[in-house]
Formats: sequence, structure tokens, C-alpha cells
Amino acid sequence: MRTIEWNEKDKALVLIDQTILPTEFRTLNYTNYQDVAQAIQTMVVRGAPAIGVAAAFGMALAGLQSKAAGLDDLKADLDAAAEHLNAARPTAVNLTWATERLLKLGRDYSGNADDLRAALLAEAQKMADEDVETNMAIARNGAELIKDGDTIVHHCNTGALATVDYGTALGVIRMAHEQGKKIHVFVDETRPRLQGARLTAWELSQYGIPYDIIVDSASGYLMRRRMVDIVLFGADRVASNGDVVNKIGSYMLALGAYDNGIPAYSVFPLSTVDYTMASGEKIEIEERNPEEVLSLQFDGQPVAPKDASAKNFAFDVTPHRLLSGLITERGVLYPPFFRNLAVLRH
Amino acid sequence: MRTIEWNEKDKALVLIDQTILPTEFRTLNYTNYQDVAQAIQTMVVRGAPAIGVAAAFGMALAGLQSKAAGLDDLKADLDAAAEHLNAARPTAVNLTWATERLLKLGRDYSGNADDLRAALLAEAQKMADEDVETNMAIARNGAELIKDGDTIVHHCNTGALATVDYGTALGVIRMAHEQGKKIHVFVDETRPRLQGARLTAWELSQYGIPYDIIVDSASGYLMRRRMVDIVLFGADRVASNGDVVNKIGSYMLALGAYDNGIPAYSVFPLSTVDYTMASGEKIEIEERNPEEVLSLQFDGQPVAPKDASAKNFAFDVTPHRLLSGLITERGVLYPPFFRNLAVLRH
Repeated sequence: MRTIEWNEKDKALVLIDQTILPTEFRTLNYTNYQDVAQAIQTMVVRGAPAIGVAAAFGMALAGLQSKAAGLDDLKADLDAAAEHLNAARPTAVNLTWATERLLKLGRDYSGNADDLRAALLAEAQKMADEDVETNMAIARNGAELIKDGDTIVHHCNTGALATVDYGTALGVIRMAHEQGKKIHVFVDETRPRLQGARLTAWELSQYGIPYDIIVDSASGYLMRRRMVDIVLFGADRVASNGDVVNKIGSYMLALGAYDNGIPAYSVFPLSTVDYTMASGEKIEIEERNPEEVLSLQFDGQPVAPKDASAKNFAFDVTPHRLLSGLITERGVLYPPFFRNLAVLRH
Repeated sequence: MRTIEWNEKDKALVLIDQTILPTEFRTLNYTNYQDVAQAIQTMVVRGAPAIGVAAAFGMALAGLQSKAAGLDDLKADLDAAAEHLNAARPTAVNLTWATERLLKLGRDYSGNADDLRAALLAEAQKMADEDVETNMAIARNGAELIKDGDTIVHHCNTGALATVDYGTALGVIRMAHEQGKKIHVFVDETRPRLQGARLTAWELSQYGIPYDIIVDSASGYLMRRRMVDIVLFGADRVASNGDVVNKIGSYMLALGAYDNGIPAYSVFPLSTVDYTMASGEKIEIEERNPEEVLSLQFDGQPVAPKDASAKNFAFDVTPHRLLSGLITERGVLYPPFFRNLAVLRH
């Protein structure tokens, strides 16, 4: 099944609950946009492309929930829903990209309110399908960079679970594997929420791709000892100069690759580019609950002292100078990124 | 109490059990060297200076255990004990430095076997006292580099628990605090065994020094956002060119500091220097049980899929070019490290 599906019978958005994988595979049904926003905030659904499409279905649900008889009232309800959904997570641009696309559909609409409700749902479904097509194009472009025998470091989860299906950086890995290339993946466990150890390892074992989980701080050592050929990670927001905002730790991973002459690529759909941002330095970085850092257990014992204090920044900024290329559905972009990203916008 | 103490009444080495801190404070008594080696291997006692002194007491216990009546037989038993203790952990040089010091005492000895037994114990006790004095000297030298208002990133645990008392890098921080400087520490949690979140956070709260625990991959972000003034970590073995082998993650931390123009220092007693090594690249890096990576729990759930595979390298090598200085008991060394380390050896 897809990570995000529409159940027409129940008029419900169906999400795979990613907070309990790999212990348990469970789906949850959502019938109102407030719960969808909550699911995004608590990371039942996560991954920049996935939360974009989930928010699109949230907007479709907002249309169905609205009691408005007229178009203007419905549009006002949609505006409120978009604001609510956008606030769920501040860093990934896909969220506002998705809600804005459905708002624009409403703004340009001249039919009646019920027709708009149907159009919103159709648009969300179209976005879900487009996401899968886009990811397949990304994967085909990226897989050309993977050689038979390569060992890859991968950060966080960028697989089917981070998208509607197939994935971005992990989609590239999957495509290379499906092309018959023998590859090995070092899976960054990706503290604090461990999407690598929980989700990426789970996906890789489904696909039959060999891997080893490593702690996030170990990739530098592996790269210095020449045990790595290529580094791949996703993106939550890309500035117009190619700076990449992604899961915390991506910057140090890219820095380690740079210091050792190992190519590092960020992999994302072009909807992730925020052309209003000249660089990554001004992009708001989400600070999440310190409990995500403090709540883990080791050998059955709580780790940190009682009343311990922690800081929990969810993302960092990889300066474009550390990246060898950007893998997108329109091809692999090489430096100077600001010029090549501008061409694709035009 | 000290992390490592001798109980004369029970003829026992007393260690603080570091595997269950901060949940519980418990001491364990050791009356034979085989159990001491096991305590080092399982990290009941850890930290390069601490395992050196623990091994010295292990040698003293080996003397007491030996049934040898003559000096030659006793020395043969000591040789066997040293080999056993050295094998407990391969990377930290302090282990072999300590056992070699007691073996040398035996080689140079001309009295009877019982006198050597007493001399071995006295030497171990002297090494424990010297460790504390050395650490105080290190701390005084290092504290001059800490300014009022500084924010420090610290990796792993290098405090009283990693030594007989007071600590190395954490000793510098403690001394600066005792000098009345207002400081703040970002504590790398230090996966996989979380010595930062478990031990360093616990020590800092004992000393009343404000801190925040962070995931290991977050320091790069904090440094880029200019939230850090100085980086401090310890050393498990230092090559004669100043390359530092230390807890996995130190390399990426030093790299992040270098990329952002933030000074980074390794802090250690000169007994940590292995002059037989021209650089860090040939130093054996301990690979530990993958279960240390896989066994943690999050929200009460196991993290990794069943049968997941992991790699667990305990240390990495920070090339000397990334370090601003080396803080030792004889002063702070600046580049070129190979010359300044050679002067101190002479």
C-alpha cells in the first residue's frame, strides 16, 4: 500500500502510523483536517514530500467538513484550514507548497461550492499520483550515479514512508538495486527520532538490500577509512543557492564527505525549492520537544538524569559548497546551483 | 569518593559501576585481575586514564593472587596477567602504559616475592594519586582558555568518572566553573553508549554547571549558528604527530569546529601519547558488539527491526590539522604538534 491513501467509502485519509514501525504495522483513518495537522506534528506521517500530500488531503477534508453553502464562505474555511495545517511544522516547504496549490485552485474557481469540494479532493489525489511519478523520475536520474559495488551512507528516512511511494534518496538506492547493482548501505540511525534505524532499515530489509545501521557520528570514521563511495540524503527545504535544509546531522555528514573527497548528493523533488530564500541561513529551523532527546532507554534504563535539560533542533543547513550535486526529477544539477536552479524555475 | 579506590581491609579494588549510572549509584569490589579485565571490557570502568589505573590495580591483584614463592615465578604470573588485561580493550594506550609500568617495576626488582607484591600495590596507589595531580594540572592549564560567558561543546565523558578523580576535558570545564566563570555546556549524548547523556550530564548537575544534552549530530548546526565558543574532548591514544584517537564522533565534531573557525582542543595526560605511532591512521580501532547500537529503546519500543545488522566502531581518528591545541599537564601545546610533543618526550 501507499504511505498516504484516500478511502472513498469512509471519506477518510489513511496513513501508515510511522511512530510504531517497525514494531507494528498499523494504519490510521483521518476524517478531519485538525487531526491531519496533529498527525503531521506528532510525526505519524513525516518526510517532506509525504507531509505535503497529507496536507493536500487535509485541505480536501477541510472542504468536506465545511458547512459553507457558498463559494466565498468555503474559501474562508479553506484559508483557516491552510493556516492551521501550515503551522504543524515550520521548516519543510512542501507543507505550504501543497496548501497553497489547493488554495489557488479555490481562488481560480468559478463553479459552486460542492464542485470545488470535489475538485479539491481530485487535486489532492492528483498530487499523490504526481509524487510517485516524480520519485520514479528522481530515482532513474540518481541511479545513474550509483556504480555496481558501491557503499552508500544514507541519513534519516527518505523512502516510500517519507513520500506517497518509492521515496527520494532511498528511491535512488532502490532503483540501483532493482537495476541489479550490488550495493551496501550504511544507515545513519538518525537521532533523536531514529528514522534511520526504525524506518530505513525496515524498508531496506523489505527490498532485500544489505545494510548496517551505524550511529550518526560514525560516518566520518567510515569515510576516512575509505569504506564509503557516495553519500545521499533528502531535503526539507532548498534555498535558491542550493543550500539544503534537512534532518539534523546532514551538515556534518556532508562535511565529512567533503573532507574525504567523497561525493554527496541531496535528493528531492523541485517542489522542495523555496525560491524566496537566497540562502539557507535565514530559514526557520524547527525546535522540537526536548523529550525526544531525553526519552530513550538503554538496557531498559532511562538514559539521562532526572530533570536533565536538552535542546532539540530538528534540522540543519548544509551549505551548497559541500554538495556535489542535487538529484531532481528534471535531472542532476551541478554547481553553480543558483544558475541551474534558476533555469528550472523559469 | 574516587572512581577507583583500594580497600585495604578486603584487599579489593572498588569501582563505581558506570553501566547503571545515573539510575543507580553502586560500587563493586574486585579481588582478582580476571574480573578487573572483565570490568574494563564491559565498561563498568571506562575512560582512558581510569582504565589505566584500574589495570594497575589489576596487576597488584595478580601479584596477590599468585601462589608463586619465588620472584621468577611471580614475574611469569604478572606477564600473563598483563597480557590478559591489555586484551580487554585494544585502543586506549593507557592500559598497556599502566601494565608495562608495573611489569618494569618487577623486572627491575631484586627483593623477595612478597616485597614485590607490596611494591606493586604501592605503585598502583601512587599511579592513582598521580592521576589526580595530573588532572588538576591539566585543568589549571586548560581553564585559562575558557572565558567568562563561554559556551562549550563536550563529547563523551571525560570527568571524574573517566579518571581516578576530577577528569580531563571535563576537569577543565569544572575548574573554569570553580574559578567563577559563567559557562554553559552542550553535552553530546555520545551514542552508542551515551556516556554524555548518562555520565557527563550527571556530573555537571553535581557540580552545578548549566548544560543541555544534544544529539551528536547537532553540534554542527549550533556551531554554524555561532552558539558555541570552544570545543573540548579527551583522547584515548595520541600519535606522535598529534592525531587524536578518541570516542567515535570526535572527528566530525572537530571538523565542524574547523569549518566554523571555532577552536577545538583535545585534553589528556601525556601518558596517552603513543610515540611509536607516526600518525593515527595505523592505530587499531576497537569494534564492539553491534548490540550496543541496536539495543536502545524509544517510547518503550525496540528501535531497530528484528535481525537488523549494525557496525559499532568505538573510536575515530581526528587528524591533527583540525585541532587548535592539545591541553596537557605540562601546558597547552600548539602546532606543529610533532615538534612540541617530541620536546616533552625528550
